[in-house]
Amino acid sequence: MHRIITLITDFGLADEYVGVMKGVILARAPEAKIVDISHGIRRQNILQAALLLKSAYGFFPKGTVHLIVVDPGVGSDRRLILLQADGHLFLSPDNGVLSLVLEAECFETAFEVKCEQFYLSPVSSSFHGRDILAPVAAQVAAGLEPAEVGPVIMSHSLNKLKISQAVIDTRQGKITGEVVAVDYFGNLQTNIGENCLKDIQTAENLTAKVTIKNKTIVGIKSAYAQKAHGCLLAIIGSRGFLEIAVNQGSAASFLNVGVGDSVAIEMTKA
Amino acid sequence: MHRIITLITDFGLADEYVGVMKGVILARAPEAKIVDISHGIRRQNILQAALLLKSAYGFFPKGTVHLIVVDPGVGSDRRLILLQADGHLFLSPDNGVLSLVLEAECFETAFEVKCEQFYLSPVSSSFHGRDILAPVAAQVAAGLEPAEVGPVIMSHSLNKLKISQAVIDTRQGKITGEVVAVDYFGNLQTNIGENCLKDIQTAENLTAKVTIKNKTIVGIKSAYAQKAHGCLLAIIGSRGFLEIAVNQGSAASFLNVGVGDSVAIEMTKA
Amino acid sequence: MHRIITLITDFGLADEYVGVMKGVILARAPEAKIVDISHGIRRQNILQAALLLKSAYGFFPKGTVHLIVVDPGVGSDRRLILLQADGHLFLSPDNGVLSLVLEAECFETAFEVKCEQFYLSPVSSSFHGRDILAPVAAQVAAGLEPAEVGPVIMSHSLNKLKISQAVIDTRQGKITGEVVAVDYFGNLQTNIGENCLKDIQTAENLTAKVTIKNKTIVGIKSAYAQKAHGCLLAIIGSRGFLEIAVNQGSAASFLNVGVGDSVAIEMTKA
Repeated sequence: MHRIITLITDFGLADEYVGVMKGVILARAPEAKIVDISHGIRRQNILQAALLLKSAYGFFPKGTVHLIVVDPGVGSDRRLILLQADGHLFLSPDNGVLSLVLEAECFETAFEVKCEQFYLSPVSSSFHGRDILAPVAAQVAAGLEPAEVGPVIMSHSLNKLKISQAVIDTRQGKITGEVVAVDYFGNLQTNIGENCLKDIQTAENLTAKVTIKNKTIVGIKSAYAQKAHGCLLAIIGSRGFLEIAVNQGSAASFLNVGVGDSVAIEMTKA
Repeated sequence: MHRIITLITDFGLADEYVGVMKGVILARAPEAKIVDISHGIRRQNILQAALLLKSAYGFFPKGTVHLIVVDPGVGSDRRLILLQADGHLFLSPDNGVLSLVLEAECFETAFEVKCEQFYLSPVSSSFHGRDILAPVAAQVAAGLEPAEVGPVIMSHSLNKLKISQAVIDTRQGKITGEVVAVDYFGNLQTNIGENCLKDIQTAENLTAKVTIKNKTIVGIKSAYAQKAHGCLLAIIGSRGFLEIAVNQGSAASFLNVGVGDSVAIEMTKA
Repeated sequence: MHRIITLITDFGLADEYVGVMKGVILARAPEAKIVDISHGIRRQNILQAALLLKSAYGFFPKGTVHLIVVDPGVGSDRRLILLQADGHLFLSPDNGVLSLVLEAECFETAFEVKCEQFYLSPVSSSFHGRDILAPVAAQVAAGLEPAEVGPVIMSHSLNKLKISQAVIDTRQGKITGEVVAVDYFGNLQTNIGENCLKDIQTAENLTAKVTIKNKTIVGIKSAYAQKAHGCLLAIIGSRGFLEIAVNQGSAASFLNVGVGDSVAIEMTKA
């Protein structure tokens, strides 16, 4: 088995925390391939981690073990879970970070992690990523059957985040959504999916008019470079959602907009 | 041999410095597994690197080669050393960065690195991590006997840092220590070890009263989540030392405290 | 084949972008070794990436595939290219990022990337690093012949950056150059190569006098530690170019100097 283990945490990279998790994994699964997805999740920001995981996991091969440690409840009685979905395996605290994986139709089974025989000893009260999740991920990557980590959990009992959904009015040709993430480039990812836009494209000669923070953008481009350097544009981003961007600049700075700010689309005659 | 090589440097991640060290290693030991522990050591901060190494190395399997490059004396006549301790191998400048490994009882042998046949040619005057330590680490990971890197050094001749120790007064039930590290979350790691606390716990009905920057914390919690969001608490951190934290916040910001600030503990009747 | 694939991008590490490229690669070339050179290139800064690549690639073994994604023109009609040079392979947009590799005499062949059969489907309009370059890099690392990625391109048709060159006056013993990069330590890399200095060293008893921002530095040191803590010095840096540094400090901050500022050298009697 040469399974991949991916990591998403809010640990940053300055401390030894990520490194020691890798040490724990490689001591138990020397052949595992460990891939960092992000350690730059804002501290305790479960929603950001949930969105990032959703955008990322599908690009890894089936059988990959995704380890997500954003864990404000560490040391409390919150559960740790192993989820099977879409042919992938997900290990994390049961705090909603897997909500978007659960939403997909591909959910298979969930287990509570209760397999002390694999934990580090002693288990600290503040770093279960290292002491419980890393060794369990290593065992799973090395071939342990998911059912061996603990009892099955009913999916309805799992914690889920409330995630705002775009509201689509197909008759009026309108969508109301919001910014859900701002990336390193300052691009604004909205919760308006590619398919929503198709749903309101009721006639050939209609153009999308995007409104954000009193600015209006007409039309959806297919490349940043279709607008001049420094100009605002709308595009379907690489995560499959409407994105507001500035060619070679930061839409977040340009508009002074962040997560939670609203975005509206209306189909109009061009 | 599939040995692990870990890296601790103060190089940051923006330049090519870490990447080229990996290139040099993989050109000589294609099967080595390289794990970053941290490249975020503050520039030239040998003490920070020493503490981080101490917190990290034990989570890696025996036989791991740890390469630590925090090297303000590069190009001067400071020595480069290979240390065997606790079944691990440590390669670094002889500038005290291995002090805490040396302190442990598990010290085995130290060698001066003097094996020009393995160095890059020419050796630059400012990047011995790349030109000397990386190729030597690769050779050692690939099976070179430690004694082949150069002559044995007596351990008393190795440079050691002065590291402040907590002062314990078991009769009075008091400990005086200080903050030695601030992590990415703003948690304050002290030099008061878990065992010191047991030493002053002379009777069942005593409670630890922790004083830092005119604030008093009563009792030691076993999880961040045992205090309300934003509240100050004391906990035994994942590194095995008393830690001052704020649940889902930064104790460093909350208290305006940093490395070197003092912490006192007194056992009192609850 | 256990080929190495290196990555240079301007993506930063907070988002999933780098991680998903690795997922795409490992799904197609499970045995590939992926090494990050830098994801800290300033956004859209092609010149910085070109310089960094030049300083880095030679430390990797021949046959390494270097993937460089700094791509302000993504989604426009700019070409993607695969270059063979010096026994290495380079994959990137045709935007000049390979200029310094091309300049070297070791150029072999260039191909346009046109092999839709290997791309992800669908190809997004804003992330060709993930959808085109990563899968093609994986195929090449797994043994695909370079000629299989697309038609040969004449090297004169490739985009090249204008990169400022140092001006050498051997008769007068003078060089005029500029700062081309500032590293994480604040060291100032110039475009004055080690060999230029040899060219103007016409007599034994001459000393280099370096002038930058109204400061004069006499002599070129062979180690940072040859000057006192906090003092300015000139040194041949690890990239093979004259570098202005401050021992255990930042020359960039000390001098308030950045990329593009001029540096002059004159040989004088000591």
